[in-house]
Amino acid sequence: MSIFDYFKSTKKDTASVAKERLQIIVAHERSQRAQPDYLPRLQKELLEVIRKYVEIEQDQIDVQLEKNNDCSVLELNIVLPERE
Amino acid sequence: MSIFDYFKSTKKDTASVAKERLQIIVAHERSQRAQPDYLPRLQKELLEVIRKYVEIEQDQIDVQLEKNNDCSVLELNIVLPERE
Repeated sequence: MSIFDYFKSTKKDTASVAKERLQIIVAHERSQRAQPDYLPRLQKELLEVIRKYVEIEQDQIDVQLEKNNDCSVLELNIVLPERE
Repeated sequence: MSIFDYFKSTKKDTASVAKERLQIIVAHERSQRAQPDYLPRLQKELLEVIRKYVEIEQDQIDVQLEKNNDCSVLELNIVLPERE
């Protein structure tokens, strides 16, 4: 690896560390409108599962829950912490 | 509710039962290309969590896993079984 490659790769790492992200989307297209919505409860359990694999800081989680007649969508956007 | 509303709603329910679907997408935009990919392992655990809330039949799960340099995407498309 030449010195130019070294700088190029270092620069890329530095620039991209801050944008390491995880996005989780759960969409349920439902036929029965009256059925209870489990997505808010699911959210906590999903995060617990994913925490086994990646470090997630609580204040870096953005949660959106949308619901209309036919569809419920849970969207989690997580900025992952910088690594050493 | 008039008789017209009744038929309309019945028809809608019948038509939409078959298309009740659940979609789960996990996308990890990564800065470190060499880090191990946990998405294949995550898949099984995600399904276990979701099975607490909805019935999922094994043969109704379509799994796609895409990976390029910067991003890994796990996509689960599930057709939910008809209800009684």
